[in-house]
Amino acid sequence: MAAPPELFAARGTPGEVETSLRFQPKFDADGLIPAIVTDATSGEVLMFAWMNAEALAATIETRVAHFWSRSRAKLWKKGEDSGNTLSVVEARVDCDQDVLWLKVDVAGAGVACHTGARSCFYRTLPLGSKPTPNLPLQRA
Amino acid sequence: MAAPPELFAARGTPGEVETSLRFQPKFDADGLIPAIVTDATSGEVLMFAWMNAEALAATIETRVAHFWSRSRAKLWKKGEDSGNTLSVVEARVDCDQDVLWLKVDVAGAGVACHTGARSCFYRTLPLGSKPTPNLPLQRA
Repeated sequence: MAAPPELFAARGTPGEVETSLRFQPKFDADGLIPAIVTDATSGEVLMFAWMNAEALAATIETRVAHFWSRSRAKLWKKGEDSGNTLSVVEARVDCDQDVLWLKVDVAGAGVACHTGARSCFYRTLPLGSKPTPNLPLQRA
Repeated sequence: MAAPPELFAARGTPGEVETSLRFQPKFDADGLIPAIVTDATSGEVLMFAWMNAEALAATIETRVAHFWSRSRAKLWKKGEDSGNTLSVVEARVDCDQDVLWLKVDVAGAGVACHTGARSCFYRTLPLGSKPTPNLPLQRA
């Protein structure tokens, strides 16, 4: 899906997207771009969510992370109810300009996951054996 | 898309997915799950890619990251050509079990991006002003 022309540049050639210093974000067929959120201090991955153009523009302008809630189909200022808003310290884009990385400070209780965990990634997978349908996870 | 029943468990209720210690990965309509890759030592986000069930199973069994190449439509052992394979030190899954996080050691030249950069995320976005189609990036 093309970016709204009043907000973001159209996509250039693959080479231009990789090397230029012009922001040309790619939104997928649903109009979304994925965002990885890490803790600006610890580096821990806190969460992963999707942005539409409006959420991305609001994030850039306000320095507070906004996403598109796919389940509720609405713009979502993360932490608007819980108080755990995400202040964006740095935002990066990848080589293909189709993924974002936000380094954030978590306000309030410092909790990024809706389960109450600091990070959504609170379980590890076993490594080194063939997967079965009974693969056990461990608390991180 | 349902996981291959010989490899991974079927999805439980939302509550079970969040709290249980049984791995129940969710693959999207294209049969893919996103994976965030960070450097096990520095914590830096190196890349972001997609796995199908086969790639995820190979990653778990071999501890070497495999993905599904959407552009080439094939299983992709990252670094198979460049030598920059990714040894998985730890793998985590998020609350909804629809996103993976791999902490890796990069072999070879230590380069994760096809552009030759260590990380795919080598450019930062400006923050604090209203987006325009001429938004400039900076080298990180």
